[in-house]
Amino acid sequence: MQVEKMADISNSIRKAKKASIELAALDTVTKDNALKAMAKALDARRSEILEANRKDVDAAEKDLKSGEMTKALFDRLKVTDDKISGMITGIEDVVRLKDPVGETISTLELDDDLTLYQIRCPIGVLGIIFESRPDVVPQIMSLCLKSGNAVAFKGGREASASNKALFDILQEAAASAGVPKDAFCIMEGREDVGVILGMDEYIDLLIPRGSNSFVKYIQDNTRIPVLGHAAGICHVYVDSKADLKKALNVALDSKIQYPAVCNAVETLLVNSKIAKDFLPKMMDAFEKNSVEVRADDASYKIIGGNVKKASEADWDEEYNDLIISIKTVDSVDEAIDFINEHGSGHTDAIISEDKEAIAKFVSMVDSAGVFINASTRFADGFRYGKGAEVGISTNKIHARGPVGMEGLMIYKYILVGDGHEVRTYAGKNAKKFTHKNLDKQFRV
Amino acid sequence: MQVEKMADISNSIRKAKKASIELAALDTVTKDNALKAMAKALDARRSEILEANRKDVDAAEKDLKSGEMTKALFDRLKVTDDKISGMITGIEDVVRLKDPVGETISTLELDDDLTLYQIRCPIGVLGIIFESRPDVVPQIMSLCLKSGNAVAFKGGREASASNKALFDILQEAAASAGVPKDAFCIMEGREDVGVILGMDEYIDLLIPRGSNSFVKYIQDNTRIPVLGHAAGICHVYVDSKADLKKALNVALDSKIQYPAVCNAVETLLVNSKIAKDFLPKMMDAFEKNSVEVRADDASYKIIGGNVKKASEADWDEEYNDLIISIKTVDSVDEAIDFINEHGSGHTDAIISEDKEAIAKFVSMVDSAGVFINASTRFADGFRYGKGAEVGISTNKIHARGPVGMEGLMIYKYILVGDGHEVRTYAGKNAKKFTHKNLDKQFRV
Repeated sequence: MQVEKMADISNSIRKAKKASIELAALDTVTKDNALKAMAKALDARRSEILEANRKDVDAAEKDLKSGEMTKALFDRLKVTDDKISGMITGIEDVVRLKDPVGETISTLELDDDLTLYQIRCPIGVLGIIFESRPDVVPQIMSLCLKSGNAVAFKGGREASASNKALFDILQEAAASAGVPKDAFCIMEGREDVGVILGMDEYIDLLIPRGSNSFVKYIQDNTRIPVLGHAAGICHVYVDSKADLKKALNVALDSKIQYPAVCNAVETLLVNSKIAKDFLPKMMDAFEKNSVEVRADDASYKIIGGNVKKASEADWDEEYNDLIISIKTVDSVDEAIDFINEHGSGHTDAIISEDKEAIAKFVSMVDSAGVFINASTRFADGFRYGKGAEVGISTNKIHARGPVGMEGLMIYKYILVGDGHEVRTYAGKNAKKFTHKNLDKQFRV
Repeated sequence: MQVEKMADISNSIRKAKKASIELAALDTVTKDNALKAMAKALDARRSEILEANRKDVDAAEKDLKSGEMTKALFDRLKVTDDKISGMITGIEDVVRLKDPVGETISTLELDDDLTLYQIRCPIGVLGIIFESRPDVVPQIMSLCLKSGNAVAFKGGREASASNKALFDILQEAAASAGVPKDAFCIMEGREDVGVILGMDEYIDLLIPRGSNSFVKYIQDNTRIPVLGHAAGICHVYVDSKADLKKALNVALDSKIQYPAVCNAVETLLVNSKIAKDFLPKMMDAFEKNSVEVRADDASYKIIGGNVKKASEADWDEEYNDLIISIKTVDSVDEAIDFINEHGSGHTDAIISEDKEAIAKFVSMVDSAGVFINASTRFADGFRYGKGAEVGISTNKIHARGPVGMEGLMIYKYILVGDGHEVRTYAGKNAKKFTHKNLDKQFRV
């Protein structure tokens, strides 16, 4: 890459860091007015967006024919009038979300006139690296604006005209309402990724949105914290004391309701005590719904026939397709061990009516979502009532599972004193702290 | 390093991961009994601890004489009967802390008989890499046991006999009360650090305790999230509308109350409007307390004399000593910009009686602690009422500022259904979610 181009990109991100400070201090009214202006501008400039998208779609059609692009990616790339309306509704939804900036989380009196406040504040600068879907731009930009975070976007080249058109319209509208223009920037080239991944001094959190290998690449090549998940290998465990009708329905829904996504089930674990009863019925349902089954030896002995045998590799594979692997286990403990070894910490379900087995499963399965008698497909920000979703995290710190705007926030401590010195509270005649919780909001 | 040794270490950490699942499910009574047994064992086996420490101290005495070890490090290494009593009290304090595991954070009804619980749970396996201070072992081990986290310790070689003696006594006592022995392991060799830093699949969070360069090295050489801070460059800004008596007291306390630590002030910013009034008095106080001053040109013109001139490098230096740099600024905005550029995001204070300046400073200084008319030395887990402190974080995600046991926790989502499928809530006749907040604790 040309040296000047690299300098350009890093310069934009430095400016975003500076602007993030101003953005963090913006009042709610200004931010909401900016969001309304953004929604209005998208509506007024639909033809520009559709025209820009036409360019991307025309180029992509060739890739689709040659097989270089999948139909799924192509569909995501395409912007329609309906999709623009969806973007507008999305922004209007964010207007209605409560402004989290400045919320008092806790208040502690340390002594007379010495009070410690824990206050919610934005994280700073987010790096959003995404493939295809231009609707990521309005969705993330509105969430970040409301939560006071600056954003460096890096979109895929296949959507560059669409992304740029959307970005320019939104940035201009936000700026017209008083939002610092520098708080948002967008990059397009594949080589820009390297610059972004190296800017750990300026970018506080990366959120990649794309394929597993794409996310894995980012996780492996940066010192910036990454919020997201690479794989989504979910399990349904049918316990010896399961209601078999529920088990059948939940397992089927977890697999077929939308198989291409991370919260679909990939491996069905069946307790050996009920395997003979359950598996033939389950097999029947899978066959009727064109689900390919890969069975371990014990299951194979029961369902045999048209079924493939599972190999060791099947236990670690995310099919994202109408394929499921089946394994029998002798106990809930074996199921738990198997899930903790082969799962991705995303979402795993138990089907059981036995309180003891459920309690064990819930406390020992180390996943972001542990479900009891419910489909793994419920693991989603909208269904969790979060409104907009930033992504699903399998991290063990900060935010786990479906993440909404709360995942874009951190806190700072504000200590309000009146000339207080630490020496008063140290040494032989040290004054004691009161450490009394107060129900009091921070105000200057 | 020998291949077998590397395998040993990684094997211990793998075992810790497995044991962490069991530890996460332990009930409060078992954990508290283990803690009590640990405190008792330390008391009963004081002579063993002192004897082991004698070995380390004897070896260190040579390094102290040759100048290879500082007096401060030597003092931290030394274990006395009093220090053992302090360790015991520390463990007893943890017994009294509320068990955070299993707490219901939020409860949301999604539909009839379909309820989503957000439940607090341990992070998993923590890596604690520390220098000298053997008292880190009981402190961290008790906090982690109570919060259900497994620990891989890596101590410094200079304290290896002391660390090992403490660790063995504590591990044995905990195991006697039913805690899985594998949940805790300890390593000693310098070369073990490399193995630990590479085990991102097994260690969920690293907490380094040591010098800035030590922490920086760890941050730069691992993919595991690191909780902590490298530098502590704190500022005190004396505003044009400051009460100059408060300013003098707070600035002095921030510098001299304990200059060797991260929350001591390193740079004093003084508004030019009050510089002529304030600086001579401040200078007088610094001189009386043997504080070396390094002044920018404008301050130098006012205080001159025995004062050194500051160089550019002074603005980015953590002295950890009786040295302070002084700079004049023309406005609160200039102070904020300077702090955000040269600070380390640790703790920065404003001295002012002006609400507008204070409001600006609080919302725009991007630090974990923003103090109003109070000494930076208050930035500390004990003073913040957290009981035990894990460390001070300048991260922008997960935990910021002084971190107590809450920083060792994350959450999982538990969805309790009754055979619920997602297809019920999708498509044309989709049922709507109720999304109603409930005041209800999770129980199987």
